[in-house]
Amino acid sequence: MFQVDLNCDIGEGFGAYSVADDETILNYITTANVACGWHAGDPMIMDNVVRLAKEKGVAVGAHPSYPDLMGFGRRQMKLSPDEIKNYVKYQLGALMAFTRSYHVPLVHVDLHGALGNLSQHDREAARAVCEAVRDVDKQITIQYCVGTVIIEIAQEMGLKTKTEILADRAYMDDLSLAPRCMEGAVITDEDFVIARCVHVIKEGKVTGLSGKEMDIQADSLCVHGDSPQALKLLQKIHDVFREESI
Amino acid sequence: MFQVDLNCDIGEGFGAYSVADDETILNYITTANVACGWHAGDPMIMDNVVRLAKEKGVAVGAHPSYPDLMGFGRRQMKLSPDEIKNYVKYQLGALMAFTRSYHVPLVHVDLHGALGNLSQHDREAARAVCEAVRDVDKQITIQYCVGTVIIEIAQEMGLKTKTEILADRAYMDDLSLAPRCMEGAVITDEDFVIARCVHVIKEGKVTGLSGKEMDIQADSLCVHGDSPQALKLLQKIHDVFREESI
Amino acid sequence: MFQVDLNCDIGEGFGAYSVADDETILNYITTANVACGWHAGDPMIMDNVVRLAKEKGVAVGAHPSYPDLMGFGRRQMKLSPDEIKNYVKYQLGALMAFTRSYHVPLVHVDLHGALGNLSQHDREAARAVCEAVRDVDKQITIQYCVGTVIIEIAQEMGLKTKTEILADRAYMDDLSLAPRCMEGAVITDEDFVIARCVHVIKEGKVTGLSGKEMDIQADSLCVHGDSPQALKLLQKIHDVFREESI
Amino acid sequence: MFQVDLNCDIGEGFGAYSVADDETILNYITTANVACGWHAGDPMIMDNVVRLAKEKGVAVGAHPSYPDLMGFGRRQMKLSPDEIKNYVKYQLGALMAFTRSYHVPLVHVDLHGALGNLSQHDREAARAVCEAVRDVDKQITIQYCVGTVIIEIAQEMGLKTKTEILADRAYMDDLSLAPRCMEGAVITDEDFVIARCVHVIKEGKVTGLSGKEMDIQADSLCVHGDSPQALKLLQKIHDVFREESI
Repeated sequence: MFQVDLNCDIGEGFGAYSVADDETILNYITTANVACGWHAGDPMIMDNVVRLAKEKGVAVGAHPSYPDLMGFGRRQMKLSPDEIKNYVKYQLGALMAFTRSYHVPLVHVDLHGALGNLSQHDREAARAVCEAVRDVDKQITIQYCVGTVIIEIAQEMGLKTKTEILADRAYMDDLSLAPRCMEGAVITDEDFVIARCVHVIKEGKVTGLSGKEMDIQADSLCVHGDSPQALKLLQKIHDVFREESI
Repeated sequence: MFQVDLNCDIGEGFGAYSVADDETILNYITTANVACGWHAGDPMIMDNVVRLAKEKGVAVGAHPSYPDLMGFGRRQMKLSPDEIKNYVKYQLGALMAFTRSYHVPLVHVDLHGALGNLSQHDREAARAVCEAVRDVDKQITIQYCVGTVIIEIAQEMGLKTKTEILADRAYMDDLSLAPRCMEGAVITDEDFVIARCVHVIKEGKVTGLSGKEMDIQADSLCVHGDSPQALKLLQKIHDVFREESI
Repeated sequence: MFQVDLNCDIGEGFGAYSVADDETILNYITTANVACGWHAGDPMIMDNVVRLAKEKGVAVGAHPSYPDLMGFGRRQMKLSPDEIKNYVKYQLGALMAFTRSYHVPLVHVDLHGALGNLSQHDREAARAVCEAVRDVDKQITIQYCVGTVIIEIAQEMGLKTKTEILADRAYMDDLSLAPRCMEGAVITDEDFVIARCVHVIKEGKVTGLSGKEMDIQADSLCVHGDSPQALKLLQKIHDVFREESI
Repeated sequence: MFQVDLNCDIGEGFGAYSVADDETILNYITTANVACGWHAGDPMIMDNVVRLAKEKGVAVGAHPSYPDLMGFGRRQMKLSPDEIKNYVKYQLGALMAFTRSYHVPLVHVDLHGALGNLSQHDREAARAVCEAVRDVDKQITIQYCVGTVIIEIAQEMGLKTKTEILADRAYMDDLSLAPRCMEGAVITDEDFVIARCVHVIKEGKVTGLSGKEMDIQADSLCVHGDSPQALKLLQKIHDVFREESI
């Protein structure tokens, strides 16, 4: 019997807008990365999502971002380390109001979009995020992609870490993500995505974009929640994993 | 020797904007109501203000509001009780990230502007705010004007309360605030403001707009911080209070 | 052969969010009320929608609102007439940049949500909107519900007006809209909605919520665009109208 | 008798916030760059500033920026050329509503902060801005620093241009601005700023940071308006220029 943690970004609507059926997605995952109002999410949505996550036994973490609702947090912004630190603190705290209300722990933080991309390689930005987490609550785990600078710095600082691999993104030969501009970087064939996930979980191996087979160890599998296909993919993963005894 | 708690709204700038010299004001007060980013305030300002308050031994509380930066939270918005509850939670939590970082308690909440005005008489809105506080942290005190519905409901719910009187606002014969549209509602003569404060503190009495002398009991004196005169008034209060052994 | 103008709110997404398939809806309508960025809409969406409207020969107007993206402009805000006037001007101008770019006229303004509701009965608010339109461009038509104060004031001021009836909303015996809180106020049976529309267009009569048949004259039929059913309803209207020679 | 156009950024407050005494500054300048609500400014302020500019005979132009109120538009954001084009259009149009209301032309556009910096050297961004201007109104002049890419592209596209030099910023030997991080880049000695301005106007020469004297030709002198010193500097410039017959 194999076990795997399945995480997904959640609560990424805003006001009257929604991008996914949060309630149903929460049936298929074990860890929820909750948007905190800056690229998506608002207090009504955060309240609802945390309540549902508690009901369904899903672990709750924060999914903070740049202050860029119009760009869904996907555009780089040139912030100072102090700005990054305080912006992440603000969003962590905002979510904490809801986890406290429902008596569940705020388990982890998983950066969104362009801020996440920056923290993969920029030591100053990554350190600023880790300091924010350490100052607000040392028990919060830093969750992010395998082999990134933020995981490295979190470990140096003695913070808990949890590594993830992205279900639908191709990897380079050094286990870095293939950039979105490369052909094949985003894997759209659902069956292939799932087969690859099973391979990773059961064998601890992933086949890179070049065809090279590499060892990979990760604590969690991340499925993106902001597309209409997300739910269907999650349901399929769920079914296949059951057959595969995962 | 008389003692009085002096509170002031603080951190009410935004980005490049500021409305007051927060650092100097913090030298003259004992309780700070910190803006949480919705009518004013941002994470950089909140971080700075909480750090300074700790250094100067000033108690820190939240000053939440409607989501209306353009109107400085002074315009009524028709929100549902659930919206009020979750909006207050969000702002409380956001500030809590900074009080946790500096290892100081988040002592109280004092509503800003139009949301505060509503809670003076609207039972549903007042209850929504009290529920937000109770859910996030029962130890947080509800601070607001003497004789208002929110103080009454907080007490019914078993929450801690702290009443305040406004240094520069005239009172009606039932101890409600004279509405801003009435002549004399805002007292601009500094010496009169201060003499009135001394009278309240030493004698427990206030002279209403009609001339009637009334008993008044309050735990704190509130000086508005968003005017250029605020600092001068605070310094004068400070000097007179020393002479008067307060 | 009967003719009718069919109008719909459009471009009501924001950033990564969308609420409707604007491109397809534009195939079925003759007049588009374009969101201007305050309750919905952003410059990318406005550009796209105006370009498409031009291609499809659909008349373009502005759909301004309160500054309340989080509430989709549906919550009353207590603004001064000057604030209303300048907020409407700002949004009209913003859209005008795109109509000028595509060499199409900005034909009309149709208020959104809570600001629209206010203008139905509040003379000061309605006048503020009409003055904004008059100051920016006297040629712009005020489009709004039959029998409302804003239409009355626009006519007094010599502005062009265009009245509409809402396809899916029930009417009271004085031809005012049945408030949403009343049972039956929103008509959900599509066939009934369409039959009622045909009746209005061909006979100039509408049956009120009480069962009373009343004369009604309107220049346009409004179908709400911010629901998943909107497109289906529009397609059905289109088909039935063809059969009915409208 | 020498003549010079003096321009200043104006209307850079927001809601309850202000950064300068716009009304008095307008007494000392001939060209106003009006903030359009994205890094600063709001419809009430825009209305007031355009009305005052008309009264005082000051030419009105737009001062558009990134959507970053919290960073006052001073932080780089990674936008696509289409985003830049449509964001500039939106802001131009918004201001146009007010210039139309007061029957004054919208004369020019002068980019703010980080968007301006980008347009100095980035051809794609500069072209996007120029296309926005061309599409909205070909008569609008592109105003920006001497020797920058945006001026070059505007001229290639046949748009009107107007070059400016910054009163309080030092120049390198190639007439580019000394970066803010270099010592001496921002000139704080008011008398030196003014003497340098007189030298530029009367002799057409500027002394670079290195001490090298260079020819410089510009149509306008720009004084920054977002500092408390701005007004004092403007008054001094005004007095000295009168003595120097400028």
